[in-house]
Amino acid sequence: MTTNETGTGTHRLTPKGRATRERIVATAAQLMYDHGVAATSPGDVQRAAGVGPSQMYHYFQDKEAMIRAVITHRIDALLGTLEGLDTMEGLRAWRDFVVDTQRRRNCAGGCPIGSLVGELAEPFPDCRADLAGGFDQWEAAIRAGLQAMYDRGELRRKADPQRLATVLLAAVEGGMLLAQVHRDTAPLETALDDALDRIADLRPRRAAARR
Amino acid sequence: MTTNETGTGTHRLTPKGRATRERIVATAAQLMYDHGVAATSPGDVQRAAGVGPSQMYHYFQDKEAMIRAVITHRIDALLGTLEGLDTMEGLRAWRDFVVDTQRRRNCAGGCPIGSLVGELAEPFPDCRADLAGGFDQWEAAIRAGLQAMYDRGELRRKADPQRLATVLLAAVEGGMLLAQVHRDTAPLETALDDALDRIADLRPRRAAARR
Repeated sequence: MTTNETGTGTHRLTPKGRATRERIVATAAQLMYDHGVAATSPGDVQRAAGVGPSQMYHYFQDKEAMIRAVITHRIDALLGTLEGLDTMEGLRAWRDFVVDTQRRRNCAGGCPIGSLVGELAEPFPDCRADLAGGFDQWEAAIRAGLQAMYDRGELRRKADPQRLATVLLAAVEGGMLLAQVHRDTAPLETALDDALDRIADLRPRRAAARR
Repeated sequence: MTTNETGTGTHRLTPKGRATRERIVATAAQLMYDHGVAATSPGDVQRAAGVGPSQMYHYFQDKEAMIRAVITHRIDALLGTLEGLDTMEGLRAWRDFVVDTQRRRNCAGGCPIGSLVGELAEPFPDCRADLAGGFDQWEAAIRAGLQAMYDRGELRRKADPQRLATVLLAAVEGGMLLAQVHRDTAPLETALDDALDRIADLRPRRAAARR
């Protein structure tokens, strides 16, 4: 799923051009993850991706175009990890995946999209809108899973899938931020477990007893 | 409360020097809030604060020293707003204060300290440690309030003030991040209300009925 098209639209590229563009974006995404957006210049990306300056400029007219492509790249990668959110077991498995991912990298970098908000939201309004769109899709995926549980009678009538989705997304984001700053998954685990327990408590009484 | 001392230690300054340093820090804090840390140069701060280059250098040898002073400034300001967190009414009043503060600025800038994490945690390890220290103090203030409620019997035995403090802090941070990116306080309100309802539900049954 592509949330926006920046720089040279990929639809006008040859397969080779598309591959080159993708290599540049993946390289930029990694450099920005490791060193931050501000500390990553188009020149750094160009050298690391092994392309020439004119090739670089052909795909991305300025740094903001490159940043927006990185945002799209990260959102697409993140949305690809959202599966099976329509059962309690699936939600717990996704929680484990999120925590394990952070643990493997010692919590460096934080959330691939949330960690960009503080740096980009004010100076780059288009980036803010792209990030908002990514969070909307993420929340929609969580909500769809909870709504499916609700529709199957696996959540009580008083449960509000929309509200629970927002609560879970805020817990993930706040938890990943605290994990990043503390270099420790503990706050992320606490925030996620609490949000999931809240959902588990909303199952019909017989199911809740099996938790 | 001062969490760290960077640049020229304030204890060695005259009252006039201290006032000048404070003016530079407050100016830098505002510029960084409005435009982001990367887009704020020491030269920008110097001109906006109305001091000379040598004066600027006297107080802050490099940009990182200035950033660290801004972090301390923001943490001190934030900790100053944490009062009365030891009753349900006090917690709800603090929730309203946080939401109103974001609403007044149309959610621009996000959390004064959380919004710095994504940009600073990886390239500046000392800044990450400063921010972690700020969050520790914030969490400790919330925990102390909840512990006082617990000790007075206003939370049930199964309540865990430490865990609830982490959950509430993650809700504030995740909620403010989503509010910033969406320019809307709704996700912040949802996240905070859910965390506070969770605490309210842990009151002894008689008190909980009065919610």
